[in-house]
Amino acid sequence: MTTPGSPCSEHTIRRRVFFYEVDSAGIVHFSNYFRYMEEAEHALWRAAGLSIAHREAGVGFPRVAASFEYKRPLRFEDEVDIRIRITAISQRSMKYTCELTRDGEAIAIGSATIVCVTQQPDKSMKAVTIPLGIASRFAVSAGAAS
Amino acid sequence: MTTPGSPCSEHTIRRRVFFYEVDSAGIVHFSNYFRYMEEAEHALWRAAGLSIAHREAGVGFPRVAASFEYKRPLRFEDEVDIRIRITAISQRSMKYTCELTRDGEAIAIGSATIVCVTQQPDKSMKAVTIPLGIASRFAVSAGAAS
Amino acid sequence: MTTPGSPCSEHTIRRRVFFYEVDSAGIVHFSNYFRYMEEAEHALWRAAGLSIAHREAGVGFPRVAASFEYKRPLRFEDEVDIRIRITAISQRSMKYTCELTRDGEAIAIGSATIVCVTQQPDKSMKAVTIPLGIASRFAVSAGAAS
Amino acid sequence: MTTPGSPCSEHTIRRRVFFYEVDSAGIVHFSNYFRYMEEAEHALWRAAGLSIAHREAGVGFPRVAASFEYKRPLRFEDEVDIRIRITAISQRSMKYTCELTRDGEAIAIGSATIVCVTQQPDKSMKAVTIPLGIASRFAVSAGAAS
Repeated sequence: MTTPGSPCSEHTIRRRVFFYEVDSAGIVHFSNYFRYMEEAEHALWRAAGLSIAHREAGVGFPRVAASFEYKRPLRFEDEVDIRIRITAISQRSMKYTCELTRDGEAIAIGSATIVCVTQQPDKSMKAVTIPLGIASRFAVSAGAAS
Repeated sequence: MTTPGSPCSEHTIRRRVFFYEVDSAGIVHFSNYFRYMEEAEHALWRAAGLSIAHREAGVGFPRVAASFEYKRPLRFEDEVDIRIRITAISQRSMKYTCELTRDGEAIAIGSATIVCVTQQPDKSMKAVTIPLGIASRFAVSAGAAS
Repeated sequence: MTTPGSPCSEHTIRRRVFFYEVDSAGIVHFSNYFRYMEEAEHALWRAAGLSIAHREAGVGFPRVAASFEYKRPLRFEDEVDIRIRITAISQRSMKYTCELTRDGEAIAIGSATIVCVTQQPDKSMKAVTIPLGIASRFAVSAGAAS
Repeated sequence: MTTPGSPCSEHTIRRRVFFYEVDSAGIVHFSNYFRYMEEAEHALWRAAGLSIAHREAGVGFPRVAASFEYKRPLRFEDEVDIRIRITAISQRSMKYTCELTRDGEAIAIGSATIVCVTQQPDKSMKAVTIPLGIASRFAVSAGAAS
């Protein structure tokens, strides 16, 4: 839960599985879990009063790592809860874990690490300090060690 | 076929159906045909010595219309031929038809219209004349009336 | 609006644009509009007390045609209303139109035709009459002629 | 390289980045790397004379884990080499690593674990021994320890 003004450390969205996300084995294609995680991440940023795509600060947040462990399949029209939590914040990066559940049953658990970068004139990316206006809006989740 | 230096009017690519493109009915999801058409379109542009994403000219080519008629399903690992032809070129737009076949058998037929635009300061788009360096590389397909 | 028990003829969903749906031109990729239309279609079926994927009846509903006209671009985090209406019902097929709007402003208009099929032993598809339990749940939208 | 008849332990495909795979930051969306890995995996299976979707044996191969580390961005029309290698084979599972390179430069490194399952009457999945006709076609890559 987010007290207005206080930093955000986690967020949960509920979302229904779309037909085009299900593969010919009748289950959500494993690549789509990474998109679900991103949806929850961006909802977390909105809950923090931010948009991950706001370019005013001239920075972007590409991923340097992402993973999922799959426990149970998801099927068409299932309603899934996607809970994202911040597990670490450093000067230039942030780590998340992401739990997918359906009616409280564990579906999958994922993680991702994003890094704050600016794009160089040659289009390469360089890691930089997360702007204070962004970093101050987030905090590590108390439950992250559990 | 393209004689080097002469304008391009059509192009065909062959491509295998990927697993993640197939839905739970065991057939390629209908939305992916539009992506196949785009792949052939961009291959046509490359055959013309161009990249549709080159922003030097400051123009972009969003779609104003796209359609497909579906005749037979495509399945996992099918090899499909995607033939795109230019059916009309005007000062600011270009029209394509796109035929998908598998071993010569008709799978689907589509169309798309792209318009040359520049982005305004307020981020809205304004139709402009296709730059000569681009327009001169394309011609209407002789078979387009068939 | 749907009176419980009465047939459904239209449905509207609101949905936010996800980051992974936006292309490098900063606008929703044109292929994703077809997925948005499908989301609204399946929500219409749910409002009618049905699931388009229920295979009990042994039938499926592939598309034989789909199209979109694009009027204005959609961008990341936009909220879009997706309204689908039934414009025609025949013994074996159903036609939809689909209007996308953002704050009442027209974004795109699409259409699709689905056909009721059974899969033959050789995996080919054969058009069949829409089962009464499905057909009786839908009606042509009064506003469809507008 | 695969000597006909001998088991397969690795495979490399080259593939161009499609426009619809690039996000609004101008780089391939991180979720698509998992699709690239799957493309290489299925090409490996074809090189072994198999199709991962052949259901004759009544088994499927869902993923229980997948991960990627991202080193450099991929952009539209880049040509990327996707090399997949088998790093472990057990009675019921198989592990891969996947290296993406562009002109020899490291782009990303991933991994995945698939498990052989049958679907139970209640639609849940149960891990089973990989059929001999499949297991005998694969071997752990000699270079996998490197």
